[in-house]
Amino acid sequence: MDERSHWAWGHASKFPDAQARGQLGRLLAAVLGVLPPSPTEPVAEGDCAVRASGVVVPPSLAAVCTTDDGVRLRHTYGRSFLDQYRGFLGDFRSAPDVVARPEDEDALVAVLRWAASAGLVVVPWGGGTSVVEGLAPREGERRGGVVVLSLRRLNRLLALDETSGLAHLQAGMTGPEVEAALAPHGLTLRHFPQSFEFSTVGGWLATRAGGHFATLYTHIDELTAGIRLRTATGAVWESRPLPGSGAGPSPDRLVLGSEGTLGVITSGWLRVRPRPRFRASAGVHFRSFDAAVEATRAVAQSGLYPSGCRLLDPTEALLNQVATDGSAVLLLAFESAHRSVRGPLEEAVRLAEAAGGRLPRPVTVQDDGDAKRDAAAASWRKAFLDGPYLQSTLISLGMAADTFETACTWATFPALHAAVKAAVRSAFDGRPGRLSCRFTHVYPDGPAPYYTWITPMAEDVPAQWAAVKGAASEALLAHGATITHHHAVGRMHRPWYDRQRPEPFAEALRAARKALDPQGILNPGVLTDADGG
Amino acid sequence: MDERSHWAWGHASKFPDAQARGQLGRLLAAVLGVLPPSPTEPVAEGDCAVRASGVVVPPSLAAVCTTDDGVRLRHTYGRSFLDQYRGFLGDFRSAPDVVARPEDEDALVAVLRWAASAGLVVVPWGGGTSVVEGLAPREGERRGGVVVLSLRRLNRLLALDETSGLAHLQAGMTGPEVEAALAPHGLTLRHFPQSFEFSTVGGWLATRAGGHFATLYTHIDELTAGIRLRTATGAVWESRPLPGSGAGPSPDRLVLGSEGTLGVITSGWLRVRPRPRFRASAGVHFRSFDAAVEATRAVAQSGLYPSGCRLLDPTEALLNQVATDGSAVLLLAFESAHRSVRGPLEEAVRLAEAAGGRLPRPVTVQDDGDAKRDAAAASWRKAFLDGPYLQSTLISLGMAADTFETACTWATFPALHAAVKAAVRSAFDGRPGRLSCRFTHVYPDGPAPYYTWITPMAEDVPAQWAAVKGAASEALLAHGATITHHHAVGRMHRPWYDRQRPEPFAEALRAARKALDPQGILNPGVLTDADGG
Repeated sequence: MDERSHWAWGHASKFPDAQARGQLGRLLAAVLGVLPPSPTEPVAEGDCAVRASGVVVPPSLAAVCTTDDGVRLRHTYGRSFLDQYRGFLGDFRSAPDVVARPEDEDALVAVLRWAASAGLVVVPWGGGTSVVEGLAPREGERRGGVVVLSLRRLNRLLALDETSGLAHLQAGMTGPEVEAALAPHGLTLRHFPQSFEFSTVGGWLATRAGGHFATLYTHIDELTAGIRLRTATGAVWESRPLPGSGAGPSPDRLVLGSEGTLGVITSGWLRVRPRPRFRASAGVHFRSFDAAVEATRAVAQSGLYPSGCRLLDPTEALLNQVATDGSAVLLLAFESAHRSVRGPLEEAVRLAEAAGGRLPRPVTVQDDGDAKRDAAAASWRKAFLDGPYLQSTLISLGMAADTFETACTWATFPALHAAVKAAVRSAFDGRPGRLSCRFTHVYPDGPAPYYTWITPMAEDVPAQWAAVKGAASEALLAHGATITHHHAVGRMHRPWYDRQRPEPFAEALRAARKALDPQGILNPGVLTDADGG
Repeated sequence: MDERSHWAWGHASKFPDAQARGQLGRLLAAVLGVLPPSPTEPVAEGDCAVRASGVVVPPSLAAVCTTDDGVRLRHTYGRSFLDQYRGFLGDFRSAPDVVARPEDEDALVAVLRWAASAGLVVVPWGGGTSVVEGLAPREGERRGGVVVLSLRRLNRLLALDETSGLAHLQAGMTGPEVEAALAPHGLTLRHFPQSFEFSTVGGWLATRAGGHFATLYTHIDELTAGIRLRTATGAVWESRPLPGSGAGPSPDRLVLGSEGTLGVITSGWLRVRPRPRFRASAGVHFRSFDAAVEATRAVAQSGLYPSGCRLLDPTEALLNQVATDGSAVLLLAFESAHRSVRGPLEEAVRLAEAAGGRLPRPVTVQDDGDAKRDAAAASWRKAFLDGPYLQSTLISLGMAADTFETACTWATFPALHAAVKAAVRSAFDGRPGRLSCRFTHVYPDGPAPYYTWITPMAEDVPAQWAAVKGAASEALLAHGATITHHHAVGRMHRPWYDRQRPEPFAEALRAARKALDPQGILNPGVLTDADGG
């Protein structure tokens, strides 16, 4: 496996060379109407400024914990725009003091107990792909020091119940590790967030990760039958794997989205399924984005439940080479392990056509044709997984670019969309820039819009980014939408999350946190303030 | 509308006369092999022993609160077996001291504040149909007195978003009130618990009620987009209606199942849909219950998502007059507002046939035939809604009878089922008795089995009932199942719920409760102990 970049998304080898970046820069300059940027180079790993560790590891934990500069550097940041920007500049002054990599729960609890006794804070760490600053305590939150607690060595399939379709997976398994463990049994989790290659079971559960399915099973939540964690004091929190229960509020639903604040997730019982053998897909084109939205609503409310229902606005369609004539495109996909899905696809297409859509190419139908399909599926998957690499490349070209996502009702979407566009354009502050929109998931009651923006960097890049982020987030809040559909809260979204959530729920969360973690060692500043605020 | 019985399920007029009960008694006696019982009469309402109110209502709340004996009697019990048994005997010594029936949230909050200041406890009350002792604090939990807070006067449709399919419903609306408000718009909630006629939106949300759909939308949880409540101190807890969100743990999911302990639910945003116009159904017969279970699993894992997938064991099939030859029967039903459901029904039937099922009668298919179907649908619905009346009638015949339900994985069901049968039979303690089983809901990872038992009353009926309940519940716990799939926890299920839930989750719940309700006025003893235990 390629080594991961010390600052950018994913594998280091995927960062393009200067010539390739130069070509991309000239293309972008033409689109934005600016002078072509000169590619710059990231600070080499050996030249980065890494905070010195201020913590001495006790001998009893020497086999589990390290203060090695290189290891700590690689456990400093997630992969938000500013994380990457700072990493590009070689600034790792917020590195943790210690990285702990236990191989079992006993060692994990020993780390927690040491941290509590030594006045340290602990950040649970899966794949390190957070884009919401979920992984780095801020200066005021560091207490006596920061221990990053990596779950990556807890990466085994603990049990498989093929009769019920349930897999007990350790928290540190990455997406490919999960699929590799299930494949010999003809099973799959089919949870493919864009971070799939690197992110982990525990990270998915802690952040309510959004996955492959556009309907029904949109978040990891719906694939979860049970969760096990260890609280800050080492207590075991374990729910029995159940298909459904009405016994009080769901314990699992309080863990889902808890982002490391209620305990360290060590394993989960997840719902797996046979690998799909039948597929059908189509791209429906629309001259009007509004008409495309109505078509998408019709499909979302039809009870057809497509596995893919991705609406691209004209800019997204152009960037993804799906349409070059200014059309919006609704990408529909169905899949099944049991039967042909030609019928439901054709009905969804008819609904979209009735709303003004055109079908420039015939539908693609693969009945029991895994082998034939694999090439196309692999190609799409590669493009999807490669998306985040672009953001890193753009940084080296002097471009600020980021994404944000939300969910809202169908009734509120038009006003929300107009407000988001106006807010982001205004926040570009006279610079050229682009904002595009797609729907990643859809529900009978509303879509999950996903926005991407790009603009040349200003002098003060963090301030520039904060202006765009703030403007967009205010528009979301003002129009009844959520601050995040599947990117989580972390520290980044706190200002808006704090206003979105019911205040009594925040009180309940703070009280729960205080009860389970009296010293406040777990991920301070995430969801609620480090001081209990 | 008929007046409701003061002790039995539902309308008083539905309690059969002595002759009809005598006939039923002779039939039962023949089945059980006992002497025919003589029907006895319930204690008349006017002769019941009602606890005297120990609380004086302040003049400012005189319009909202009453201490009238008749009103308090009718707000004493839910409808568990023992509730009805005690009511039958005229024992209302656990009546509340006050019944409050506010017409708006201001009056509701005034009641809460008075209760807090006067050292009283408050029990939120919807339809009064709890079967788990969710409504009556025990002697040690009554503090300075008990106020039942009825939500029934908050019963309006507050808003309807037809574009998104969302209705904002006040908590006190009953099932028929909800459907009546939606019908003029061609919409329906299609949440039909067996208590549908009497239970309320707020009660459904507070108890995670199970409804009409056998798959996908099994609980009210899946139909919920947002909830509003008032905490014990009057604070507003309100989530924005959202199709999906990843912003921290779901606030709604902590309210769902909170059973009045975190606040008083005043309204909810629920997902509504067009009324179905297409239906298809079939009954597949099996000589072997084990084969029927395998067939049901095949359908549940097929991705067909029937709206009905009710497996009846031979006893249930006999009692429901569905099969009289000892067959188990799988009742399959599909419905849609958009398209014929003949295809998916036929495929589900084929799956069931492949597992050993027979189809004695052709499938029933109604395409766009609401009128034609109405008679059959109404007939089935009436039988379903009349089910609970039987339990009341049996009490007057000296029969102890009750139901309990659970959920488990497919892999654990066979051992669980054997253990439940053995435990209940043993608890019959030598008396004749019957135990039957059906599946009310099914999931890809497991069924929700629902058990019904009947045996002649012993000398000490409460002790007899507790022996059967305890034996059954121990079997559920020991085999990895849940103590309740959709009947809630209340006070009845506490001994097993306390062992099922993760202990740190209980700590979190207690801490949340303490934070939001520092004086512990809301429904003490439900979910956690009144003293914070």
